[in-house]
Amino acid sequence: MAVIGIRAGLKRRVLKLSPPALLGLFYLCFVAIGAVLLRLPFSNHGDVYFLDAFFTSMSAVTVTGLTVVDTGGDFTLIGQIVIAALIQLGGLGIITFAVFVLTALGVPVGLGQRLMLREDLNQSNFADLFQLVKMVFIVALGCEAAGTVLLASVFVPELGWSDGLWFSIFHAVSAFNNAGFSLWPDSLTRYATNPIVNLVVPILFIVGGLGFVVLNDLYRKRRWRRMTLHTKIMLTGTGVLILFAWVMFASLEWSNRETLGAFDSWGARIMVSWFQAVTPRTAGFNTVDYGEVTDATALMTMTLMLIGAGSTSTAGGIKVTTFAVLILATIAFFRRRSELNCFGRSLGIDEVMKVLALTVVSIITIFVSLFVISITHDGSFRALAFEVASAFGTVGLSMGATAELDTTGRIVIMAVMFFGRVGPLTLGFFLATHSHVRVRYPPGQVFLG
Amino acid sequence: MAVIGIRAGLKRRVLKLSPPALLGLFYLCFVAIGAVLLRLPFSNHGDVYFLDAFFTSMSAVTVTGLTVVDTGGDFTLIGQIVIAALIQLGGLGIITFAVFVLTALGVPVGLGQRLMLREDLNQSNFADLFQLVKMVFIVALGCEAAGTVLLASVFVPELGWSDGLWFSIFHAVSAFNNAGFSLWPDSLTRYATNPIVNLVVPILFIVGGLGFVVLNDLYRKRRWRRMTLHTKIMLTGTGVLILFAWVMFASLEWSNRETLGAFDSWGARIMVSWFQAVTPRTAGFNTVDYGEVTDATALMTMTLMLIGAGSTSTAGGIKVTTFAVLILATIAFFRRRSELNCFGRSLGIDEVMKVLALTVVSIITIFVSLFVISITHDGSFRALAFEVASAFGTVGLSMGATAELDTTGRIVIMAVMFFGRVGPLTLGFFLATHSHVRVRYPPGQVFLG
Ligand SMILES: [K+]
Ligand SMILES: [K+]
Repeated sequence: MAVIGIRAGLKRRVLKLSPPALLGLFYLCFVAIGAVLLRLPFSNHGDVYFLDAFFTSMSAVTVTGLTVVDTGGDFTLIGQIVIAALIQLGGLGIITFAVFVLTALGVPVGLGQRLMLREDLNQSNFADLFQLVKMVFIVALGCEAAGTVLLASVFVPELGWSDGLWFSIFHAVSAFNNAGFSLWPDSLTRYATNPIVNLVVPILFIVGGLGFVVLNDLYRKRRWRRMTLHTKIMLTGTGVLILFAWVMFASLEWSNRETLGAFDSWGARIMVSWFQAVTPRTAGFNTVDYGEVTDATALMTMTLMLIGAGSTSTAGGIKVTTFAVLILATIAFFRRRSELNCFGRSLGIDEVMKVLALTVVSIITIFVSLFVISITHDGSFRALAFEVASAFGTVGLSMGATAELDTTGRIVIMAVMFFGRVGPLTLGFFLATHSHVRVRYPPGQVFLG
Repeated sequence: MAVIGIRAGLKRRVLKLSPPALLGLFYLCFVAIGAVLLRLPFSNHGDVYFLDAFFTSMSAVTVTGLTVVDTGGDFTLIGQIVIAALIQLGGLGIITFAVFVLTALGVPVGLGQRLMLREDLNQSNFADLFQLVKMVFIVALGCEAAGTVLLASVFVPELGWSDGLWFSIFHAVSAFNNAGFSLWPDSLTRYATNPIVNLVVPILFIVGGLGFVVLNDLYRKRRWRRMTLHTKIMLTGTGVLILFAWVMFASLEWSNRETLGAFDSWGARIMVSWFQAVTPRTAGFNTVDYGEVTDATALMTMTLMLIGAGSTSTAGGIKVTTFAVLILATIAFFRRRSELNCFGRSLGIDEVMKVLALTVVSIITIFVSLFVISITHDGSFRALAFEVASAFGTVGLSMGATAELDTTGRIVIMAVMFFGRVGPLTLGFFLATHSHVRVRYPPGQVFLG
């Protein structure tokens, strides 16, 4: 009886937690289970200690991709399967959860029938939820299956059927979920000039990074004029950021012998620039060694990593829409406007508050963690700043400092990865539960977290 | 006739400029005149070229204190007097201008009689203005005179009457205006453990950095309860930041042999920590070599430099009140509040927009200028970031990189100093000319630029 009482009490308390706290708790459980599995003898070749396993599990569940051991070399096939499963759970988990929360709060995510999902879930709502989850999974698995087939056309001829297929599956899953884990120690550097890898992998992570809301809107509306404000901002912002990064990377690295300068043809340099321009949007694969880029490229990449990609997607960062609202709010201020307008819709004070809160919390997190790491670690300041930005945006690009971190440094990076994944969504939840004030224009919905 | 027509047209156009543009124009004129004067043979000993003179003049007018030549060694007494005059003009100019603009826009700055100063200035308003300017000058010159006498008690016994007095005047002017220029190449390092220097110089720059509005309020009200919201935030924020920085600097540098570790006694270390804790609030003097501090201290100092001190003061940075509103807005967001309350007053959406705009513009300025400098300069990333933060906050602390910059780098630093000085005030002007929306609590005034 006493045990049942305690259990019931615990159950009540867990159910009482706010959705973001619940999400955090789930993630921590996954991470713990993953860490134990990866530590067990059948998962690794012996050189993976508990902190390594814990770090790898956290990196996989938060779909970051920073590593302290060699994913392909130190883990057995079973270990690699565990990592792929953790990536899938983490990536799809975040999409599903994001869509759930937004729906629960009455924000129409555009599933055709409007889902009426409240905090007191009942039977009929579970049916709708199931529908929703099914849809998310169909899109994800469909993309990953297509990616696997296309990647297999490159990997199977090189590695044989069994290895080639597994590498294709692993990299397709890792790409769609913006996880950035690779089975090669130098990521995709050996495929720097392979056109299939340079198309398939980026398309997977760009689609995965647009977000469920945008994909659903694209599928249903198909015409620009009928799309939601959120979709318009996401597509425009994504296009602008990619073009900007592409041109900048090419110009900054063109004659750097350690990066673009190593390739003779213009075409190869432009292709390599393309890959490096899209990967900071939290994908995290690389085809050049980021330890060798110029300071200017490092700074630009950090900026892109912090911006990230879309809400309700597998990507991290403060999100493109958040960044857009930041810029729009600033422009509105200088034009002496008190309300924000964009594509004929207005954004309310709540969005501005959200963006401000997220920016402040992000800056504080980055400064404090960089501060703590720099107390205990004597590395290049540039590399440490890059690593922290990479962890916060759940990107996974590295200048090589993460592998050299001491225990404190690793724990800080783990905490930053966790916060980078759960934090923005938590803020999204706070925004959605705000009481809205007055409206002027017809209000447009933008998901900012 | 044609000439008169052109002149009249030019006059009309200049008068039509908005106050911030006018301020910018004035500053550039001062900088140009200062550059020419400093370049002339009687001002220097021959090794100061035009870009050096231009840089020094810009640094003096914006009361930054970054230098590319040795102020005490490369300039003659006349050159040093020119620099002191530029500092005084720049420092008092900014206070006077800030108070003018705020008054012109109907914000009561608390001069007793309320000044009704509109854009179409007329005779009677000029009388009030004169009153105001007189008051600002009395406070400034009074503080500087007292500082000179106290510093003379240290400098005169060492350097004799003529040099001792001049050094006292120069450092008192430089301190009150938060300029950070020193006639010693290693700033005040030789007085690291001198109690008078450690009290007089910081008191001068803290008082100068509180701002005219706070000083006026303190003088007139004297009791906490009756003070304005702005004063309460400034005093609380200043106290918290100083205590925080003091404790942090002491703990981070305690056993660093190049900084605090060089001093044997606890008392000396605590005194040196005190000085380094207050100087990043845009004063810019130093008593240890910042090139030798740890990464963590460098990062903390950068943060403090960007925050700066008070509005309507001689200090720079985004200002303590802006920082406070940032934090308050973030807390309000997490408490699911749509309005900001502080000390029983509310802050409106305008303030939040202002803070957001200032934060975004600051981040963009810092990233872009660091980006441009890092393209052309191959130095330590940490030192470059520190230099840019120092220029933006018009602080003047340096890790030594500024003196080594090439022409592009110097021009960028000059632009950042100029923007760091004029930018926040410009935003203050934009805020003040916003049309206010609705109010809930009785609104409290906070000057944010
Ligand atoms: K990633
Ligand atoms: K200064």
